[in-house]
Amino acid sequence: MTKTKKPWAGRFTKATAKSVEAFTCSLSYDSRLYRYDIKGSMAHAAMLAEQGIISRRDERAILGGLKSILADMDKGKVFFDSSDEDIHMAIEKELIRRVGEAGGKLHTARSRNDQIALDVRLYLLDEIDKIAAEIRALIRQLVRTAKEELATIMPGYTHLQKAQPVLLSHYLLAFVEMFLRDAERFADCRKRTAVMPLGAAALAGTGLPIDREKTAGLLGFSSVTQNSMDTVADRDYIAEFIFDAALCAAHLSRFCEDLVLWSSDEFGYAVISDAYTTGSSIMPQKKNPDIAELIRGKTGRIYGDLVAVLTLLKGLPMTYNRDLQEDKEPLFDAADTLRTSLAVFTEMLANTSFNAERMRAAARGGFSTATDLAEYLVEKGVPFRRAHEVVGRIVAYCIGKNKTLEELTPREFKTFAGQFDPDVVMRIRLEQCVDARKATGGTATKTVRERIRKIEKTLDRF
Amino acid sequence: MTKTKKPWAGRFTKATAKSVEAFTCSLSYDSRLYRYDIKGSMAHAAMLAEQGIISRRDERAILGGLKSILADMDKGKVFFDSSDEDIHMAIEKELIRRVGEAGGKLHTARSRNDQIALDVRLYLLDEIDKIAAEIRALIRQLVRTAKEELATIMPGYTHLQKAQPVLLSHYLLAFVEMFLRDAERFADCRKRTAVMPLGAAALAGTGLPIDREKTAGLLGFSSVTQNSMDTVADRDYIAEFIFDAALCAAHLSRFCEDLVLWSSDEFGYAVISDAYTTGSSIMPQKKNPDIAELIRGKTGRIYGDLVAVLTLLKGLPMTYNRDLQEDKEPLFDAADTLRTSLAVFTEMLANTSFNAERMRAAARGGFSTATDLAEYLVEKGVPFRRAHEVVGRIVAYCIGKNKTLEELTPREFKTFAGQFDPDVVMRIRLEQCVDARKATGGTATKTVRERIRKIEKTLDRF
Amino acid sequence: MTKTKKPWAGRFTKATAKSVEAFTCSLSYDSRLYRYDIKGSMAHAAMLAEQGIISRRDERAILGGLKSILADMDKGKVFFDSSDEDIHMAIEKELIRRVGEAGGKLHTARSRNDQIALDVRLYLLDEIDKIAAEIRALIRQLVRTAKEELATIMPGYTHLQKAQPVLLSHYLLAFVEMFLRDAERFADCRKRTAVMPLGAAALAGTGLPIDREKTAGLLGFSSVTQNSMDTVADRDYIAEFIFDAALCAAHLSRFCEDLVLWSSDEFGYAVISDAYTTGSSIMPQKKNPDIAELIRGKTGRIYGDLVAVLTLLKGLPMTYNRDLQEDKEPLFDAADTLRTSLAVFTEMLANTSFNAERMRAAARGGFSTATDLAEYLVEKGVPFRRAHEVVGRIVAYCIGKNKTLEELTPREFKTFAGQFDPDVVMRIRLEQCVDARKATGGTATKTVRERIRKIEKTLDRF
Amino acid sequence: MTKTKKPWAGRFTKATAKSVEAFTCSLSYDSRLYRYDIKGSMAHAAMLAEQGIISRRDERAILGGLKSILADMDKGKVFFDSSDEDIHMAIEKELIRRVGEAGGKLHTARSRNDQIALDVRLYLLDEIDKIAAEIRALIRQLVRTAKEELATIMPGYTHLQKAQPVLLSHYLLAFVEMFLRDAERFADCRKRTAVMPLGAAALAGTGLPIDREKTAGLLGFSSVTQNSMDTVADRDYIAEFIFDAALCAAHLSRFCEDLVLWSSDEFGYAVISDAYTTGSSIMPQKKNPDIAELIRGKTGRIYGDLVAVLTLLKGLPMTYNRDLQEDKEPLFDAADTLRTSLAVFTEMLANTSFNAERMRAAARGGFSTATDLAEYLVEKGVPFRRAHEVVGRIVAYCIGKNKTLEELTPREFKTFAGQFDPDVVMRIRLEQCVDARKATGGTATKTVRERIRKIEKTLDRF
Repeated sequence: MTKTKKPWAGRFTKATAKSVEAFTCSLSYDSRLYRYDIKGSMAHAAMLAEQGIISRRDERAILGGLKSILADMDKGKVFFDSSDEDIHMAIEKELIRRVGEAGGKLHTARSRNDQIALDVRLYLLDEIDKIAAEIRALIRQLVRTAKEELATIMPGYTHLQKAQPVLLSHYLLAFVEMFLRDAERFADCRKRTAVMPLGAAALAGTGLPIDREKTAGLLGFSSVTQNSMDTVADRDYIAEFIFDAALCAAHLSRFCEDLVLWSSDEFGYAVISDAYTTGSSIMPQKKNPDIAELIRGKTGRIYGDLVAVLTLLKGLPMTYNRDLQEDKEPLFDAADTLRTSLAVFTEMLANTSFNAERMRAAARGGFSTATDLAEYLVEKGVPFRRAHEVVGRIVAYCIGKNKTLEELTPREFKTFAGQFDPDVVMRIRLEQCVDARKATGGTATKTVRERIRKIEKTLDRF
Repeated sequence: MTKTKKPWAGRFTKATAKSVEAFTCSLSYDSRLYRYDIKGSMAHAAMLAEQGIISRRDERAILGGLKSILADMDKGKVFFDSSDEDIHMAIEKELIRRVGEAGGKLHTARSRNDQIALDVRLYLLDEIDKIAAEIRALIRQLVRTAKEELATIMPGYTHLQKAQPVLLSHYLLAFVEMFLRDAERFADCRKRTAVMPLGAAALAGTGLPIDREKTAGLLGFSSVTQNSMDTVADRDYIAEFIFDAALCAAHLSRFCEDLVLWSSDEFGYAVISDAYTTGSSIMPQKKNPDIAELIRGKTGRIYGDLVAVLTLLKGLPMTYNRDLQEDKEPLFDAADTLRTSLAVFTEMLANTSFNAERMRAAARGGFSTATDLAEYLVEKGVPFRRAHEVVGRIVAYCIGKNKTLEELTPREFKTFAGQFDPDVVMRIRLEQCVDARKATGGTATKTVRERIRKIEKTLDRF
Repeated sequence: MTKTKKPWAGRFTKATAKSVEAFTCSLSYDSRLYRYDIKGSMAHAAMLAEQGIISRRDERAILGGLKSILADMDKGKVFFDSSDEDIHMAIEKELIRRVGEAGGKLHTARSRNDQIALDVRLYLLDEIDKIAAEIRALIRQLVRTAKEELATIMPGYTHLQKAQPVLLSHYLLAFVEMFLRDAERFADCRKRTAVMPLGAAALAGTGLPIDREKTAGLLGFSSVTQNSMDTVADRDYIAEFIFDAALCAAHLSRFCEDLVLWSSDEFGYAVISDAYTTGSSIMPQKKNPDIAELIRGKTGRIYGDLVAVLTLLKGLPMTYNRDLQEDKEPLFDAADTLRTSLAVFTEMLANTSFNAERMRAAARGGFSTATDLAEYLVEKGVPFRRAHEVVGRIVAYCIGKNKTLEELTPREFKTFAGQFDPDVVMRIRLEQCVDARKATGGTATKTVRERIRKIEKTLDRF
Repeated sequence: MTKTKKPWAGRFTKATAKSVEAFTCSLSYDSRLYRYDIKGSMAHAAMLAEQGIISRRDERAILGGLKSILADMDKGKVFFDSSDEDIHMAIEKELIRRVGEAGGKLHTARSRNDQIALDVRLYLLDEIDKIAAEIRALIRQLVRTAKEELATIMPGYTHLQKAQPVLLSHYLLAFVEMFLRDAERFADCRKRTAVMPLGAAALAGTGLPIDREKTAGLLGFSSVTQNSMDTVADRDYIAEFIFDAALCAAHLSRFCEDLVLWSSDEFGYAVISDAYTTGSSIMPQKKNPDIAELIRGKTGRIYGDLVAVLTLLKGLPMTYNRDLQEDKEPLFDAADTLRTSLAVFTEMLANTSFNAERMRAAARGGFSTATDLAEYLVEKGVPFRRAHEVVGRIVAYCIGKNKTLEELTPREFKTFAGQFDPDVVMRIRLEQCVDARKATGGTATKTVRERIRKIEKTLDRF
């Protein structure tokens, strides 16, 4: 049995069971919302006073009390225990303790249902801004490296087979495109999050003469929600955010996969600084790309958070149901995981060096210029399908002779198709192959350099 | 062993195993993309000719051949068998059969990697438009019903407990808000899908002098992708679309949950027309809300499609990997499922009638006007927390006496708090409770009517 | 830069970055494994001494040190900081601090890769036992209530429509079947978890003369893993456990759904004690079935944990990769969530009363005895399909006349089919309908009573 | 409006809408259950006759009719159209068409709710047996290859870094362990599936004097379900099967990941036969490990199926709800996907050769014998932690000098620790390192050979 009576216990004849308090209490995780909760309460109290619902004197008492609570909490002071159901009740109780009866007027014309919606939206807006900043920092790092590596040619892969030579910079910019889309998606989510919910009260609005637009203005929102039942039932912004985080994590996981490959002895394309790797408790020689692996693994975590929230929503009757309390931990986890992953990834990337020689040597092998050979024939009028077949036979010939394409003589080429002239040898030099691909989006140095310029302009406006 | 040689088999010494052909063949599902594939090929051929990469004569042969194939396929003719790997190869083979060598030039300067990206994007743009139309139709139906039911008062629920009286129209408009957000999200996804990928070729672009902006123009795109490696590796638009579908399905599932509840004997709020329910093979009395249940169940299906695609992407090395072939079935399934669910749901809703009397009677029970009673006290100057507690005790008193709030006399009220005056009886009449909630988003008739007007205007522009 | 050198840092030239330490550190969650870690280390040290790999003197020092650390940790003392990577390193470092050089010998012939596998398996065995105990307690509660409610008839539902009358006890026993299967699945998972992994070392086993069977014996395992590479790569037991938890949570979610429905005003079948419900911050009349809703919501959480772990495993190269560190939080979360949900649910159920009168009245409505009417006709020789149709028409007639089946006279019945005799009236009495269903698994009182007896016997052996 | 009246339409006044028929119809996928449906109906009819519920004459008519339908369907004849709701109704309708009134008696004492449960269980038992056979075939292939490759030493990896030398056979056997566990899990699932559900009828059992144990006997089941409500609500066996499939797919995905890596130019460890790879439409040199990639990608599909079914079950009220119809497509998809993946994978593996020389050369690099060096010191009495550190310094020294451990002289070793004797050089030879690991589960040739023998014995009994 609990010592203190619950503020909602008027009609109850039995005290809440201890096990129930522990099971339903959300303080362990929602207490991190305290700043948003207090900020929202201050705006609410100001609006109530403005509308004459509470007196100016009560307003002053409330605002003073809330400010002192905020200051204390910022210093790490804790006022609550497990019999407080959640951060809203905990702060209200403390407010009443500090300022007396006026505190009991704060909850006028609102409910925890719209209050939590406000807290979470405020939190999420901050979080999106932080993540957008991390994405920008990562893009900046990618662009920086891309500019440094403009002369580095590596083999581009499909099916993890060498396909065609590309610039390392082109590879890095591919990820810039992904992260730019991520930033766009977060911005879209932000606009749907930035709608003020307070005033929906429990589910139907309130009979008291509130002014929701005023509260919105005080909190920096430019619009308010348009249906009170939807307002307390809605968790779309949470699901959308976690999805955006999941897709961004998928991008990171692909980058990490490649970094793990590239750090292997077999590839040897990348060397991550000792400071961003760890060793083995048993094998003295090991230097492991742990960060990349961990970030790749954390993808699952965010996917799981997404499934958790979607499952939650499935088949819920209108409007608010207590199930919805379970939205916060996946949200917090997804945001924390993505934010720190982005930050550590960016740092690691800045501390990784690429082995241009090894990449170049690799690009020379694996017949990665075979497509250029086929395009050479196309330029000489051979239908593509035939050109493809001819080059296929040349490759088979090389494998048999254990030769590379570069080692073939013009005469050998000629035996496969009359259209081969001596200039074919020049056409399949790596630089030539790369720089030939100059249409928009191609890997030609010029095209890549232009793209970098455009991205830098975008970043300035960002 | 296969009869015909694969077009890529130049370097291969063994024919593809039959089991491999069956396992890797995607024709059973990607053949539905044929229209988009042919459309894309026609634009590609036109661009190639314009750029002088193929001759005008070859262009004419290709366009003629593709048109005749399209016409035949539209009539249901099938040209391919399981030895064709996919719809691209199947159509190209048929083209070569029809127009000879010119057909072999169509695949110049492109790869299946960028071709499939184009096909899927074209398909998805169409699909998004169809789904947007279904969402609009559903919103229109909701608005229509909301206008008819403006006088119907029902109990609003939280925790499936009667909470406060609301208008049925207000309830219906809550779903309009959700579907408006869905439409917005699909529009956001559409803008990221409407980017032309062709010209990325296998992964690096092509050395031939293509003009990607020209192809884009011919196909009605206003922009092209900016990095060839990203272009063939990217499935973001698919994941984003399926997520949007999943969230929309979640909204439907909540509506269906309520319809199932409301169709029960116990609630008795809704009667779905016989034409939109089914019976039992054993229980002669049964009339089941099958449609609502099925749509609710299909939510899982779309969630599953989302997990399938996200799992696919996790940890894939750059750029294209054959795993990505597995993106299409979940995409098609999600699109088909959502589209048909929306359509059937709208029809069913149009064939559902609501029992206003029963709703009203229910709203009268369950003390759903208790909050108004508390607000009455607040208006008389009682701090909200105290008002809440007083009303809690009144409710407990009523339960003990087996009375409703409406049955209490002014004198009885007075015993709980001196602030109660005889006018309290009027304040807790249902109409009064509903119409008092007139701030933006509230359930007051006036507020709801205004919201309907705004939605109708939005729909006009939509 | 960190103060202390990492124990694996021999080949490293740079200290680990602070951000990397924070990002890779697992102490915040794996420290809860300390008991299992120490237990495993003690067995390992004993085996090492037994095999002559370390001296008896070193063994004594190690065991003494570990015991003192365990005792201190049990008292809540903490020795480690964020520069310790994980619980293994933290304890080893403390051991070396306490007992000197002997402590440095503990990690002989093992790696963190097999050590963590052991810790988690030991933890999981304990956890499975605790959950099995909670399941047994829940089954016992269900059986207790089923015995008390043997005379309570309720309407059984399909499609949330009244279908046929059943005993409330029969309903409760349906859940017993589900939880019995859950217990079976956990037992199956247990047998696959109870295999000793230590000795796999990093991935290949060790060249030192260890005796894995001895270690197994000391720790109470009856078998050891059979392939060292599989041993350090394997997380099957974790995935299987979380799946079992997810399915058990799905069962709870269905029960909770019904309890939420039954607690509604509309159904009114169940009254959960005030001590197991909560109120509203704004609506004084509310009494919400929060526990049931929260448990239902937590299903999503465990589903998410499952997806997290499955995603983790997808496409991982052999053998151990740091991604696998991410297995623990979903595991802990799933175990904690399920265990506490089961416990609170059982308590709540014990504090719920059922409204037999209301259930009986409901069973009388909704034509729930129509199938019995059809079976009556079948017994008189009417083919089932025809009987079904006849009764369908009777139901339609009743709806038109606003009558129940019970209110029809024998003469009215006769007008629908000649086979109706006056005894039909008795045949469709609720008790008769229930008790007629006496084949195995049916709802007849006798059959239900027998099933209870069998379950009680099973529980005794359990 | 449909032409024919539904068999359950007695109480309905409106015909089913066409869109509803299309939306609810399950024939497109459940028709594949026809054999199981007919088999179940035959046993049911025989039991009904045995119990005197239908006459022997009716039984003969029914059995004759069902046999002729089965024969026709086996030949590919189709009798039904979209107005038939499902395979049960379609076959019953056809039966009545063929044998008249007797056909109308088949559905006596059963419902589609227990009928579909029977059909799916029968289907699943078959499917589990087929998958178990595929798993056995794969294990046999693995053992075959493991025996051939007993002399092949490769570098074992952790973190995709070379860790320690192991036998390729040891690597292959690691997967045998995984698939053995999969087989075990499927067997556990099989025992829970092999329980006869018929007789539960709609949800409550039947009042007719059926004998469920008799039906079970005729169908080869050894037990019957024990609660009729649970029987029609239960889909545990489906969820459990799909999970088992998901975990098995995860194992395949890890194997495929390695095969993709090993097929790369960089690793060069494996050569998949041309017949099990495919080429590129644009790059003539490409030979892609498509099968391995596709199987890896299909993991997502099965994960998705699992999420679909779990989502379906979440929060469903008791007992049968139409949502459950959505269980079949994920089930079929998971079973088909896993079965064909296993089969193609086994074939591919049989057509893959391993490059022993390259593996051996790789094992020599990367300091993979460093742990053995540390163990050498431990054997000479150096505490493990110190030995680890010493070897770490040796590795750093080698990196600086660009030497391998094998290239160090005994004198050089001595400078790092006095305990190094000349025999150290022998101790770190690859064969020595491998064969030293001879404890259970280790990679020593002897240990691996013994494990093969045990697995072969298991397979014989399997």
